[in-house]
Amino acid sequence: MTTPLRLGIAGLGTVGVGVVRIIRKQADLLEARTGRKITISAVSARSKDKDRGVPLADYAWEDDPVALAKRDDVDVFVELMGGDEGPAKDATEAAIRAGKDVVTANKAMLAHHGQELAEAAENAGLVIRYEAAVAGGIPVMKALTEGLAGNEITRVMGVMNGTCNYILTQMQATRQGYNALFDEADKLGYLEADPNLDVGGIDAGHKLALLSSVAFGTQVDFDAVELEGIQAITLEDIDAAADMGFRIKLLGVAQMTGRGLEQRMSPCLVPDQSPLGQLEGGTNMVVIEGDSVGQIVLRGAGAGEGPTASAVMSDIIDIARGLRLNTFGQPATTLRKARPAKAAVPAPYYLRMQLVDKPGALAKVAAVLGDAGVSIDRMRQYGHQDTSAPVLIVTHKVTRTALDEALAAMTNTSVVQGDPVAIRIEDVG
Amino acid sequence: MTTPLRLGIAGLGTVGVGVVRIIRKQADLLEARTGRKITISAVSARSKDKDRGVPLADYAWEDDPVALAKRDDVDVFVELMGGDEGPAKDATEAAIRAGKDVVTANKAMLAHHGQELAEAAENAGLVIRYEAAVAGGIPVMKALTEGLAGNEITRVMGVMNGTCNYILTQMQATRQGYNALFDEADKLGYLEADPNLDVGGIDAGHKLALLSSVAFGTQVDFDAVELEGIQAITLEDIDAAADMGFRIKLLGVAQMTGRGLEQRMSPCLVPDQSPLGQLEGGTNMVVIEGDSVGQIVLRGAGAGEGPTASAVMSDIIDIARGLRLNTFGQPATTLRKARPAKAAVPAPYYLRMQLVDKPGALAKVAAVLGDAGVSIDRMRQYGHQDTSAPVLIVTHKVTRTALDEALAAMTNTSVVQGDPVAIRIEDVG
Repeated sequence: MTTPLRLGIAGLGTVGVGVVRIIRKQADLLEARTGRKITISAVSARSKDKDRGVPLADYAWEDDPVALAKRDDVDVFVELMGGDEGPAKDATEAAIRAGKDVVTANKAMLAHHGQELAEAAENAGLVIRYEAAVAGGIPVMKALTEGLAGNEITRVMGVMNGTCNYILTQMQATRQGYNALFDEADKLGYLEADPNLDVGGIDAGHKLALLSSVAFGTQVDFDAVELEGIQAITLEDIDAAADMGFRIKLLGVAQMTGRGLEQRMSPCLVPDQSPLGQLEGGTNMVVIEGDSVGQIVLRGAGAGEGPTASAVMSDIIDIARGLRLNTFGQPATTLRKARPAKAAVPAPYYLRMQLVDKPGALAKVAAVLGDAGVSIDRMRQYGHQDTSAPVLIVTHKVTRTALDEALAAMTNTSVVQGDPVAIRIEDVG
Repeated sequence: MTTPLRLGIAGLGTVGVGVVRIIRKQADLLEARTGRKITISAVSARSKDKDRGVPLADYAWEDDPVALAKRDDVDVFVELMGGDEGPAKDATEAAIRAGKDVVTANKAMLAHHGQELAEAAENAGLVIRYEAAVAGGIPVMKALTEGLAGNEITRVMGVMNGTCNYILTQMQATRQGYNALFDEADKLGYLEADPNLDVGGIDAGHKLALLSSVAFGTQVDFDAVELEGIQAITLEDIDAAADMGFRIKLLGVAQMTGRGLEQRMSPCLVPDQSPLGQLEGGTNMVVIEGDSVGQIVLRGAGAGEGPTASAVMSDIIDIARGLRLNTFGQPATTLRKARPAKAAVPAPYYLRMQLVDKPGALAKVAAVLGDAGVSIDRMRQYGHQDTSAPVLIVTHKVTRTALDEALAAMTNTSVVQGDPVAIRIEDVG
């Protein structure tokens, strides 16, 4: 293993440039650790002439990532373009057909096409690695796939979209509403071109689907992730949660239940003294629970040039060292199709609704909840100057199905204005 | 790779039994993930007839771990006896001579003999793996050696002795002194046979030395770890620290400085709102900082049957999967001998001393500190009914050498009773 490992890097955005920078800066370290040189043969990006702050003249240029992927002087195709279809997928497939290992940071592509790509790669004796696709610099795919492989995984949770966590923690810190913080995040360049990827939970949902697959030995199934964004969260919700000792996080939860695989990405209340509750700003956290190990918490930067490039490098280094592993931890053909289970595990919920100010309104709401089998743990009605009053309710444990019935019935009463907000209170252990 | 991977397990204490239990309970899962069966050929322990709660009749019994290590039907020697010399080392050496890979949880053996064992194993094309030796169930060796291998590591920190953290957090929670909590930990079976391994910081120091070696590409050098136990910590220290927004932890810190490799295992003040500060009870935490990734925090159970066995299994699974890595992340013969640097990095310190109650005493102490170039950030003198008064001082940043000079000079004044206590305030980032 003394021949160099030769890379072709497609995509020279933040992450691609970060990878080039590490390979140039840490050449000696990488050689000491892998026993061979790691070199770049060729690169590809949309615009050749843009100054990216790193010298690229040593590397061949390809306009077409597919051509890059097929080059004879490329051993590993490093896909850092993004997008679930189009050039990223075309070039990844071309790389596999040409016998190249693949390293990618592309959660969307793998969440949608991971199964077919993994099967193709494994058929050809190749690997696809994607540490950078999940939780940025945190080596979570490695921890789950290898470090905790002796465990039956019981639950995986994570705050994996830094932008959402930034918005939620800044709402609390600066006393501004969701829209103001959304605009601020936009100005800071924190949002994807389609912001719904962030605030709608899609990006984090992609990551959760990948974690689920490895954790439970199931085919990645992004369509089964129950998605709920943070757009409906108000400062009042954050304050009310804080009053009760909770914080609101966009939390992903995947767990195998008797009724099937539950995958949720939605706002949740978590105790403010828990590691998840204390997570500020753009930091990510993944919590993995296994039958033997108990709970493992991993925390670090979920995005940014250095952290994401660090994760890409770990995959490249594994390949350089000859550490070769199936994409989802076991042969793709042995992954089961999981039955999706909608929020099967009962939990307490936080409810917020606007109640018209007339006698018996609260009684009506309580009756509707009672009829649906939802019992009330705590209730709070705030003072008001309007013709309606905000009411907060914390329920005892209830299934989402029962709760949804109660919420539907509530809109049929004449006492609740608009749609009630329901946020799950997650028992984070 | 469809032949079974056959283990010989030496040591059937908590961890050994845990490993047997996982292999029996999760046989299908392990086969799905590794593509082969993982079987136990033979076991060895001090007493054959003891009921350990797991059936052992399927496995051959060896009284002598050396004989176990050499058996033809053993592919991997799993050393779970402990002890830096004696049977553990003899059997590990015998295993290597017999061509067996080694998985061990033995931090003492590797901290003292890691270099020679690694060289012997690598000469023979064998691996020694020891995830369970450091921070129990936390997959930290894998995170550091593989997941963050693209980084120049700048600092590694950790709370890695659950017993010490239990004593320190319980002192604060129950308002009892060190001796009472030491006795309680003893009764609960939390202490090693030689309690100094725990409260003297030796056990955690072993772990730090192993982390250092991988982090900095240096030969493991436990003798260079500056060790200081928690025995001198009083409830007053804990309260004073809390008053100032800190908590006291037995914290390991390793960092490469211009003057050499600094390895310290000692009580430190850390901010109570930091992840390290919030660590309660027996939980472990390791913080890794790299030039690209920034700060990664890993948290989980540092001891116990399940967590430690989980770590042992991850090493066994790696071997079953054909993932083979040098013991310290690069060939042992390429590891540098580091120059040890005594607390090279300046830091603020917390000082507690007992001052005789006479005019000018405080001025004398301040003068001694000033003469040694130690400047004072905060000072607090508590009310007292005695002939002496406790005085707390927080210094500005100072080197340990300058501080030690000041402390030595202080004992030569007639105003300080006994030895002053000095606790570093670590900037945990």
